[in-house]
Amino acid sequence: MIDVCLLGTGGTMPLPERALTSLCVRYSGSSFLVDCGEGTQVQLRKAGLSMHDIDAILVTHCHADHISGLPGLLLSMAKSDRREPVVITAPPGAAAVIRSVCVICANLPFDVSIREMTGAHSEFELKGLHITAQSADHSVVCLAYSFEVRRRGRFDPQKARALGVDVNLWSVLQRGETVSAGGRPIAPDMVMGAPRKGLKVTYITDTRPTPELRALAEGSDLLICEGMYAEESKAKMAREKKHMTFSEAAMLAREARAARLWLTHFSPSLDDPYRFTDRLQEMFECSLIPHDLEKTELLFRKE
Amino acid sequence: MIDVCLLGTGGTMPLPERALTSLCVRYSGSSFLVDCGEGTQVQLRKAGLSMHDIDAILVTHCHADHISGLPGLLLSMAKSDRREPVVITAPPGAAAVIRSVCVICANLPFDVSIREMTGAHSEFELKGLHITAQSADHSVVCLAYSFEVRRRGRFDPQKARALGVDVNLWSVLQRGETVSAGGRPIAPDMVMGAPRKGLKVTYITDTRPTPELRALAEGSDLLICEGMYAEESKAKMAREKKHMTFSEAAMLAREARAARLWLTHFSPSLDDPYRFTDRLQEMFECSLIPHDLEKTELLFRKE
Repeated sequence: MIDVCLLGTGGTMPLPERALTSLCVRYSGSSFLVDCGEGTQVQLRKAGLSMHDIDAILVTHCHADHISGLPGLLLSMAKSDRREPVVITAPPGAAAVIRSVCVICANLPFDVSIREMTGAHSEFELKGLHITAQSADHSVVCLAYSFEVRRRGRFDPQKARALGVDVNLWSVLQRGETVSAGGRPIAPDMVMGAPRKGLKVTYITDTRPTPELRALAEGSDLLICEGMYAEESKAKMAREKKHMTFSEAAMLAREARAARLWLTHFSPSLDDPYRFTDRLQEMFECSLIPHDLEKTELLFRKE
Repeated sequence: MIDVCLLGTGGTMPLPERALTSLCVRYSGSSFLVDCGEGTQVQLRKAGLSMHDIDAILVTHCHADHISGLPGLLLSMAKSDRREPVVITAPPGAAAVIRSVCVICANLPFDVSIREMTGAHSEFELKGLHITAQSADHSVVCLAYSFEVRRRGRFDPQKARALGVDVNLWSVLQRGETVSAGGRPIAPDMVMGAPRKGLKVTYITDTRPTPELRALAEGSDLLICEGMYAEESKAKMAREKKHMTFSEAAMLAREARAARLWLTHFSPSLDDPYRFTDRLQEMFECSLIPHDLEKTELLFRKE
């Protein structure tokens, strides 16, 4: 199970009733935070989420509304007795900016390692999640992220028995390692079915839609995508400012065959995004214009 | 008239129901902000105060809870069409830290000049206010500030007439300049009464009480002073961490003969500071434990 909480839905600046966009993804005892603007730590408290358990902060880009809350969060994590290391992933060149902003949170009681992604596409494993970082198309270098729980096929005890594998070695095969039985190697694929559908959450903000981002979002159980502007009359502005309209986000979700879409990163000028719900759902049925602190759980399908 | 709004009352970290301590002082069309932690710009919006009109930001010290909101505020001021220069005053050595934090708000459409105060005591005029910065006693270099509207004596038209001063020159004398009448100089004090009581607001936070801070607060109409800890059992911690208890703040107000006292900068561990109201008012009658966004107007006395 993955659970996600969209901590805020605003872009550009925090408002009294709309915090800056940030996402908390939790899986198997670890928390992953995507972006940390001014006020994100307060939203974590409002959501009842632990700051202590944040193992990684994934930065999309170095605009203030996405990273200005970093020093405050790290200091509050220290106050919550965090002592284990924290990883910050960020686009190329971002480490210097992050270090500059974090001059006011020196001497933390835990290690913070900033990993700049290199190249347009990176994949890595972190605390059991398979994470992909894909470069986006914004006014500055920017990353979108997907989080996947990859799920192996079902273990077939009959096959294992027929191959003479000792019962004590079954869990080793289930972990994906080869064992030995009767003097010959038994690979996991000899006793496991085809990989089952896992879980996938994709987070795309501060970008134009691109083919690479469609590929990143492909088959997501939940796609969280920016919709800076609701009205079609702002399509030109969206292109110029390297953002998206609601309809562009809906198109991206459709093309990527996402199961669900949440919009976020609304322009401060967009007083009431919710009145566009019907129109959005005409374009992509299973979509939501969320409020701050929208939560959901993603569960494995029974197969 | 001066009006003040205490934007938040918290110390160390912002909480859902308690923003970080920051003060907005308005006088004669200008706004002055003291400190700008994470979330201060949201508090300004909640209070209905203009970001556009902030002419100066007075920084007490460079701990994150006092300056982490600076880049976001400056960017939002830019969005509110601010084009006039902004002054930031700060303690010695603070400019480099502020510039480092503000790496994410480069290319503002207005000039920001950072003025480090030198020495333990500075006085300067800014937009009609007489401001005093006094070094405090904290774990890092820290300033307390007072804001005064100094008020000249009443103009005596009979004296001016008797001295033969042309009516057109009366306003020049009232401004404090010397004029000429019948070939001899007429100084303001020849036609003006003794200076009248003006208005004074003093803001003291993140410090132990000191004789110099008592002098700074002397005769304040309103003293806003930190009270990090309410309980006497925390007096030792207050000394060690270079903060104050409620009773130390009350003592400071009494010794400084302040008219009114507001406490602020409550420890996150202090869930309910308001239950200490009676005890505080026993120590200093005209005192308040304010909520965020507490406002008041200070008016000239009729003389």
